[in-house]
Amino acid sequence: MTVVQAMLTGMELHHPETSEIELPAVLHALSDPHRLEIVRRLAEDSEPRACGSLDFGVTKSTMTHHYRTLRETGVIRQERRGTTKLTWLRRDDLDARFPGLLEAVLASKPVPA
Amino acid sequence: MTVVQAMLTGMELHHPETSEIELPAVLHALSDPHRLEIVRRLAEDSEPRACGSLDFGVTKSTMTHHYRTLRETGVIRQERRGTTKLTWLRRDDLDARFPGLLEAVLASKPVPA
Repeated sequence: MTVVQAMLTGMELHHPETSEIELPAVLHALSDPHRLEIVRRLAEDSEPRACGSLDFGVTKSTMTHHYRTLRETGVIRQERRGTTKLTWLRRDDLDARFPGLLEAVLASKPVPA
Repeated sequence: MTVVQAMLTGMELHHPETSEIELPAVLHALSDPHRLEIVRRLAEDSEPRACGSLDFGVTKSTMTHHYRTLRETGVIRQERRGTTKLTWLRRDDLDARFPGLLEAVLASKPVPA
């Protein structure tokens, strides 16, 4: 591990507490077709997913922006592992805060991003 | 009724068909605290509400923008009556397109706008 990697590993990624997750912010995070698709894919996974394993034909920086938006609004959790990040959907936290919301969103038919 | 009023009455307000209502657009429309509060208030009403009957301490043009966003994404229906507009929540249409979504959104605790 390089010094930079070690520093990155040590940097803590911001996640709101469950009680801090707010509805307007979550709705905004989910209002982008690409972010909605990320959430759909994560919802299908039983294991955390490595960042970069989803490809929507957009730039890496755009994907990073989408992941950050989802993380900072409390929709996903990310953890650094060496040079990659592992990503989970915060399904239990979202269900606790907004019962039925995620289920309704996931049940709706996807539209082309 | 003046000529201008008559013209305004004749102008048709755009509403998407039920099948054209898209999830990302609806989530975006609901992601603003003021728009979310408009939807909450409309959900409480059994009768259509006149525009201008809600006051959140924002400018009239901001409120007009919020109503237009809600209307053009299919969340509300508006109809001109003389110099005012009557507004309804498109609850049945939203329930048909995204079962459970509106219910989950309305069930969540409001946050200060």
